[in-house]
Formats: sequence, C-alpha cells, structure tokens
Amino acid sequence: MLQPLSVPKEILIMPNAALPKATAISSQLARRLNALGAHPEEFHYDFEKPARTPDLSGRDLLITIGGDGTLLRAGHLCAPAGVPLLGVQAGRLGFLVELSESQWPDMIDRLFQGSYHLENRMMLLAQFFQAGQLKDQWDVINEIVVCRGMDVRPIEVRVDLNEGYLTSYIADGLIVSTATGSTAYALAAGGPILPPELRNMLLLPIAPHLSLDRAVVLAEGACVALRALGEHQAVLSVDGMAPVEMTPEDYVRVTANTHSLQMVRFGEPNYFYRDLAEVLHINPVLRVENHD
Amino acid sequence: MLQPLSVPKEILIMPNAALPKATAISSQLARRLNALGAHPEEFHYDFEKPARTPDLSGRDLLITIGGDGTLLRAGHLCAPAGVPLLGVQAGRLGFLVELSESQWPDMIDRLFQGSYHLENRMMLLAQFFQAGQLKDQWDVINEIVVCRGMDVRPIEVRVDLNEGYLTSYIADGLIVSTATGSTAYALAAGGPILPPELRNMLLLPIAPHLSLDRAVVLAEGACVALRALGEHQAVLSVDGMAPVEMTPEDYVRVTANTHSLQMVRFGEPNYFYRDLAEVLHINPVLRVENHD
Amino acid sequence: MLQPLSVPKEILIMPNAALPKATAISSQLARRLNALGAHPEEFHYDFEKPARTPDLSGRDLLITIGGDGTLLRAGHLCAPAGVPLLGVQAGRLGFLVELSESQWPDMIDRLFQGSYHLENRMMLLAQFFQAGQLKDQWDVINEIVVCRGMDVRPIEVRVDLNEGYLTSYIADGLIVSTATGSTAYALAAGGPILPPELRNMLLLPIAPHLSLDRAVVLAEGACVALRALGEHQAVLSVDGMAPVEMTPEDYVRVTANTHSLQMVRFGEPNYFYRDLAEVLHINPVLRVENHD
Amino acid sequence: MLQPLSVPKEILIMPNAALPKATAISSQLARRLNALGAHPEEFHYDFEKPARTPDLSGRDLLITIGGDGTLLRAGHLCAPAGVPLLGVQAGRLGFLVELSESQWPDMIDRLFQGSYHLENRMMLLAQFFQAGQLKDQWDVINEIVVCRGMDVRPIEVRVDLNEGYLTSYIADGLIVSTATGSTAYALAAGGPILPPELRNMLLLPIAPHLSLDRAVVLAEGACVALRALGEHQAVLSVDGMAPVEMTPEDYVRVTANTHSLQMVRFGEPNYFYRDLAEVLHINPVLRVENHD
Repeated sequence: MLQPLSVPKEILIMPNAALPKATAISSQLARRLNALGAHPEEFHYDFEKPARTPDLSGRDLLITIGGDGTLLRAGHLCAPAGVPLLGVQAGRLGFLVELSESQWPDMIDRLFQGSYHLENRMMLLAQFFQAGQLKDQWDVINEIVVCRGMDVRPIEVRVDLNEGYLTSYIADGLIVSTATGSTAYALAAGGPILPPELRNMLLLPIAPHLSLDRAVVLAEGACVALRALGEHQAVLSVDGMAPVEMTPEDYVRVTANTHSLQMVRFGEPNYFYRDLAEVLHINPVLRVENHD
Repeated sequence: MLQPLSVPKEILIMPNAALPKATAISSQLARRLNALGAHPEEFHYDFEKPARTPDLSGRDLLITIGGDGTLLRAGHLCAPAGVPLLGVQAGRLGFLVELSESQWPDMIDRLFQGSYHLENRMMLLAQFFQAGQLKDQWDVINEIVVCRGMDVRPIEVRVDLNEGYLTSYIADGLIVSTATGSTAYALAAGGPILPPELRNMLLLPIAPHLSLDRAVVLAEGACVALRALGEHQAVLSVDGMAPVEMTPEDYVRVTANTHSLQMVRFGEPNYFYRDLAEVLHINPVLRVENHD
Repeated sequence: MLQPLSVPKEILIMPNAALPKATAISSQLARRLNALGAHPEEFHYDFEKPARTPDLSGRDLLITIGGDGTLLRAGHLCAPAGVPLLGVQAGRLGFLVELSESQWPDMIDRLFQGSYHLENRMMLLAQFFQAGQLKDQWDVINEIVVCRGMDVRPIEVRVDLNEGYLTSYIADGLIVSTATGSTAYALAAGGPILPPELRNMLLLPIAPHLSLDRAVVLAEGACVALRALGEHQAVLSVDGMAPVEMTPEDYVRVTANTHSLQMVRFGEPNYFYRDLAEVLHINPVLRVENHD
Repeated sequence: MLQPLSVPKEILIMPNAALPKATAISSQLARRLNALGAHPEEFHYDFEKPARTPDLSGRDLLITIGGDGTLLRAGHLCAPAGVPLLGVQAGRLGFLVELSESQWPDMIDRLFQGSYHLENRMMLLAQFFQAGQLKDQWDVINEIVVCRGMDVRPIEVRVDLNEGYLTSYIADGLIVSTATGSTAYALAAGGPILPPELRNMLLLPIAPHLSLDRAVVLAEGACVALRALGEHQAVLSVDGMAPVEMTPEDYVRVTANTHSLQMVRFGEPNYFYRDLAEVLHINPVLRVENHD
C-alpha cells in the first residue's frame, strides 16, 4: 500500500498561533527540514482572525501544527491548490492529525525516504442560491449543515435528490457529511463511520421529530438540494464556520467537489480503524458483567 | 380512577387566534357551556404576539382550542393561578390536547357530570443567575435547554447536581425535561417516555461528542445547575421560547416547581400509553419480514 | 440510466407455496409470459421445507412471488447461477420486492421491451473455520451475525480486520452486513442505510455494553474474521437461516463474494431513496408541534 | 442522609468460589468482623453450580465478595429473607458493588459505627402462565426479557398493560427492567438510566424493526403481560438466568414485587450519578474538537 513517492522540497509550516507549543514545534521542525535539504517556510497563522493568507504556489507540502481544527482550516487552503497536507499534533488528539509530538521526528525521516502514501478524501461543493442566483459557494471537508439558528425550535428541512423531491425532516437540522466528516459532527449526531476514501455523501438529521433517525449514505455522484421551510430562523454552516441565514426561498445544492483533500499517511492501511477502535471503546475495566 | 369532581362554572375559552377553525369551535363551545349553566368567556389570544393577558382570577377552568403549542402557552398562564386546563384540538394531533374536534361535544357533557379526573404534571423552576444574582426565572412545562446559539459548534455544558460537580458534556446542548417534556424535544433527542405524573427530571444531551448519549432520570427532589463553558455562543431556552444568551459566568438552576399543571382528562388511565403506541409505531404493512 | 436490455425467454416462476395468493398470481403470470412468447415454468416452492431444488441451468430470469423473505431465499439459488431476479409482491411490502400486485402486468410488458436495468448487489462470502480447517461456507445476501445463542447473556466478539486485531465487542452480537442487508437486521440494530450497489461491508454491534454503538463501514476489499469468546453459547447465522454453534476456537472469515445478486429494476434511479423515505417517516399528521 | 442504623451482628460472607482473590478477601474480612464483635460465617458459593443454599435465617447482613454478577445472585437469596446486602469487589468494577478492595477495611468500621444507609431497590415479580395456569414465578432484580431463542429471527412480542392491549413489537426481544436493571441489559439496548430507588418499570425493545426504539417508563403500580407470537422460537429469561421456552399460548405477567433489595450504602446521596458520569464518559483527551 505504501508507495515510494516524490520527496517534498518546498514546504510551508503552519503552526496554530494560538498554541504556544505549536510555535515551539514549528521552529524545531523547520530546522530539521533544512537539515534534510528542504526549503521550509514558517507561517504563524491566527486561525480565528486570519489577517492574510499564505501563498501556496509552488509548494509541495503543507504541515500544520495544532489539532484537527487547525488541519481543517489549512485543508481549505490546500485542497484548491492541490497541495498535500500533513498534521502534527500540538493539542488534543483527533482523527485527522497524523503525527503525535513524539512521532514527528522519525516520520519526517520516512517522508524524505518517500515512504508514505497519499490518502484522497472526497470534498463536497456547496452552492448557495438566493432567488435562483448562485450567491456563494464553499469547499466542504467535513460537513454542511442546514439547521436552526438562534431560536431553539425545530425547522423543516426539505431534501431534493438528483432534482426530485425526496423527503422532509422536522429536526434541529440536517447534516450532509463526507467520509472525513463522519468522525466529526455526524458522529455526535449518531451517524456511522465511513472509510476515509469513500466517495459517497452521508445524510443525517439532528434530533429528528417522530421519524426514524437513521443515517442514509447516498450513491456516488448524488446531488442534493436542501431548503429550510417554516417560520423559525434557519442557517447553513460549512465545516463549523460562520453561519449564513437562509429564507424559505433559498437553497443549497451539494455535490462532490472536483478538489480532494490529500493527506500524507505513514500508517499501515488499517490505521484508521484501529485508531477508531481506541477512541470508541471505553476502559474495559468498567464493563458491566453478570458472571463475576 | 375517574372521580366525580366539582363542576366548573367560570370558564375561560382561549382559541388560538391564528387558526380560523379555532374561532369557529370557540363560539359553538361558548353556546354549549351557556346552555349547561356555566359562565364562559371567550378570549381570542394571539399566541405569537400577545397584546394583553387574560384575567384568570376566579376561573374554574381554562379551555384552549388549538394544538399542543397553544396549550403549552396557556399552561404558563394557568399553572401559577392554579386553574385546570383542557385542550380541544383545532390542528395537528399531539400528546397534550385531550379532545379531538368530534369528541368535545360529548366530553363537555361528561365534564358537567363530574366524570373526569385531574392529572398533575410536575413543572420545573428555572432560575437564571448572572454574577451570582438571580436575574430572571421561569416556570417550565416541557424543558429547559442550554445549547449552542447561532454558531454551529458544540458547546461544553457543565452540570452540577445537588451543589456538587457531576459532569460536563461536549454537545449541541443539554435538555432538562419534565415528564410532560419527554414527548417533546427530549423525544427528538432520543430520550425515554416518562409517565405523565412522574416527578423526576430527565437529563439528556443533544448530539453529544464521544460520550454515551444516554438519558439520565434524576431522583425526585434533585437540583441541577447548568453552565455553558467555552468560547462559542450559548443560549438557554425554556419551552421553546425566545433564547437568552449565557456567558461562562452565568448559570441556570433547575428544581421542581411548586406549581403543577393540572390537566383535565376523561380517558381511562392507560390512555397515555395507548396514544403513544399509536404515535410511535409505523404502519405494520411496511414491516420488513423474512418469512413471506 | 435505463438501458434497452436483452429480452428474457426461459423464465422460472417461483411462488411461495405457503401463500395462496402467490399461487394465483403465478398462473396469471405464466399465461401472460406465454402470450408474450417466453417459456415460463412454474415451480411451487416450499421455502420453509424445500423438498427439491429447481433447475436454473439455461434460465434467463427467475421471478419470485411472495415477500422479501421469498426473494431472499430465491436469491441464494440465483446468484451462483448468474440468473437475474425479479420479485412480485404477494404479502407485505418490503425493500427488495420490485413490483406490487397491481404493477406487475404493466411492468412485464416493459420487461419485454427491454426497458429495465439490472442492479448489481454485492454479496459476501462467509467461511467457517474449525480447528483451522474450512468447515463450511455460505453466500450472504443480507448479513452474517455472530451472536448469543439460547442463553440471554452478552458474548464477546473479537474482530480481526485484514488479518490484524481490530477490537472486541461485549454485546448480544455483531452484524456484518451488505448494502442489501442495511435495510434488514442492521436497520433494526440502528445501522445506516447504504445505497444498493455499494460494495463496502458494514459492521454493527447489537446491544453493545458500554461502547459507542456506531456502525462502521469498511473500505472496499476488507476481510474480517469474527470469533465468539467467553463462556456463554454463541452462534452464527447467515441471512436468518439455521444457527450454527461456535466455540472460542472457531472463527468465521468474511469477504466480498465473487457472485452478485442481479435484481431487475424498472424504477428511475432514485426509486430506492424515495421508497425509503416512505418507509422511514411516520404519518406527519401526528407530528409534535409547538406552534399550533 | 446517612442515618445511624443498627449494627449488624450475624453476618454471612459469600465469596464467589470461582475467584481466588474473593476467597482471600473473605478470610481477612471474617477476622476483622470477629475482632469487631460480630459473628461472621463464610459460605463459599459456586454461583454457576450451587450445590446447596446458605441459611439466611437470623442473619443481619450478607456480604458478597466478587462482582455485580455475584451480588445479583446473592440478591435473589437476600430479598425474600429481608436481609440487607453489601458488595465487596474482587473483579471488575460495576454499578452494584459498593466497596473496592482498598475501601472495605475503612468502610467496615463505618458499618459498625452505624454510619451507612439502606437503599431500597424495587424488584419485580414475574409470573409465567401456561394454559392459563401459573406455572412458575421469579423475583426480578434487573430485568425480565422475552426474546428470540436460538433462531436469529425477530419475534413479535405483544404487550398488555393493566389488562388491556397496548402494542406489539417486532424485535429481537423486549426488556422489562427495574431501576437497578437500567444499568445492565437495558443500558446496552439503549435505555435511560433510572435513579436507584425509582419504583417504575421500564419497557424497552431490543433491535426493533421499523418502530421508534424508545424506552417507555410506566406509571408506578403498572402490570404488564408479555406474549411471544409468531413462528420462531422465543424464550424468557430473568436476570440472565437459564432461558425458558415460550409458546404463543403462554404469557408472563410482571408487577412490582413485595420484596425489595436492600443495599448498604456509605456514599453521599449523589454517589450513583457520579459513578455513572465516570463510567459513561470517555477520556476527554480524545475529544474531537474544531478549535485547536
């Protein structure tokens, strides 16, 4: 599974500026990359209030230092530019960041031996229409959500599939998730875990009223349109970013994106499921048993 | 189970002014109550924008005409005044409204024969503290929710039980529900159904991250305090009413209320579970079977 | 999506012998097929106690008359023989049977116009090993389950993925399901709905103790091995067929099957999701609303 | 909450004979109790194959040494005799056993200072009727289950509530649980957690087909009767004990029991919820976050 791949030369390092530890790791990493003959550049990024955007042209690799949130935001920069992404952890462990603080020195060596593989994660394209006009559009790494705004009231979300009416949910909201997003908000809402490279989207209501709350995986190539009906405030949000208000006349159309997120992976192919098993299972010491 | 009870004389009829059918039923009902020797008064209530509040002093009974939402709002007026409540349906069926459009004429006769019983539904008292000061308080019929505001991000809700730290949830929000509320928002969030007169509160997270999403029923007499921690906007909302913003310094304290909601019931004692079975089960024609 | 396809000539009709209505439809259908120039043969099959197996050599199509269970059993005959399958309903509606009693006459005409498509549904191959020896193997249309036998006690199911240890569940059992099976037992156990032609298997525990009860979709090409550990009786069952006892030394290995189930479909490509929406949603009259 | 209570004198110690550590703790405990002036007797119990039953007449207290399973079986002996029960752990931690291996020496002192309280846990009475005749009956501490036997097929469970038809489930089975059982099988099946002294029973399907899988808490004093309909084998099981076959003519009637389980508790009243919070929440280090 691991193929010898080209060795990166032009590398942008993006530590999360809000995490002091990330800054420290960043300078160590830059020194190491220099020693290995690469051209690293550090870019201290304030993810909450980005003042300027890094220049990714000519880059072979972007390395983020932080958590899953840092990597998610960097992914939005990388994917359209076709630059692969590698995450080094400086905070809580997550599902996306590849390397822990203790692992990165060894793995950077493996990177320069070409001993890694690129994992392609499908992204979505969300297009927001107002009065029939395309108003805005976003690349989606995890999920797009159409949900209640400030009012704590269920909304009605109408779903069209491939241009035909599918169904309506009365719920807090509806999630359209990628495989990557299946370990993010969709997991909290009760969804299944999808394999990283699956190219199918997942539809999942949040707190649905009197309907079976099952996740639905759509066939590859599906196109869904979501409308928020009813009198209460509704919003849409992409990857947890600032919510956008929707009126009953608006809709958002979601399809597979031409961009993918390319993630550098060193692990054996089962890594994803093994990490998962660790995260999802509770300390077996506390299991409730009848036979002791 | 049905006891002969006193016959109501001073009756306020509150049709939901937004439903034309409710107004029509209201005048029929007023005529009928007059004929039976009672003193009905009609009060056309605009529940969305109430201009004035009806005078409940000296009333023996309030009859709402509308749906569960109408009855919920009327309940907030009735409970502190100790006036029993009866719902006549003019809209979608729900769990709270007692009488359908076709049932009310017969049941009004039973009411005047004293052939009904009063169901006592526990309410909660939610007290909102800012900087240690009681800022506001509300009677709760269904539930109080501490949850995300406009931002589509999980919040951290810290729970204290009987003045000691219990746990924290990372979730869209946390519901504290009455038995009455167990068929409202808590049902959508995956909660159990509680018997109408149970005096225990129910704790239930909405879309919790990496924790078992189980409902917890607390012992009678419990007191919980909820705080919204973290950087994202959080709000509290009582019975779906306008949300109130919370900062990490605020908290809301929830206990059993001295007021109860008194509901007039004609049904046999099992009515609640039978209605439930109807609502919760899907048309058996569509059952998936292997043996046909 | 619908392609003109070859017209079937040699057709076996298999009514479920236990359903009188199926026998009646069978003779009508045979007459119709004769009139259309095909060579139908009727085979009255007792699915519970099959005395003999029909000869499928040289057949172009098998039509079952019954429910999803009938079709499931016929599928086990069709798939290895490469014969496409069409279901006509004579009982409860399900997810697999294509045609209702009223639809079949028109659709048989469409069949002879070549106006249908074949849906390929991945099957699994389950291989049962005892003392390291392959003891038995089965084609799987819906699911293979390793679960408690007669004793009402949780068992421990150990899962290996691609020859490496993955995790263990303490549960009533573990389901390994196809996309087809995602609307059968896996749906009851809380699983997601998968698109009919997805070639990924689904892993799902039944009533797991103190672990997150999430479904996991595996990458295409995965191989899992299941072992039942612990002191209580455990069994394995394929597609609801007679259970086979497992000792802690045994295991069952599950991979994608070389056979597929080929289902004749007349519907437009969204048919699957639209049927689903109907089955999964409850009568909206009974929705619980606050605003009426 | 902790009341000075009478000091126990006649104490039976029952170590689980299958756990060597339990035997060791038992002799230490016997010495300690002797030193404190009590009259302890050790009874090495083989819970899987009990050869004889201990004599509980005249006992003030039974102390089990083992896990939740040991305590559950001892509870069946204690409850009819009205003897309080205390669990010392020698195995996996659970929800019922009060004292860990390191806690017991100190807590035994508190026991002799009368500094404990007795928690009363409602039990159920399950009465099994065949051909209208009471055939057998059992005391229930955790739950009674009517469920599939060996065949891995859903069964139909018909529920009558207070002598009237309530509903039917198509499911793997139906659990009727006490508050105590809400942390056992019912928890695995998705049920809520009930406070230890709640006297309401909980109804909960296991893997229900196409119905909302919600737990229903019944009003205090309820009586339910369960029947297993359909062609596949069904069994009933009480507290995980040996299953009993049921035909469609049989039924089991479940009501509150006149016996309660009296558990010795030293903890402050919130102990139950705090333990719960520990068991139900996963290591927060692994939380999925967007903001790091």
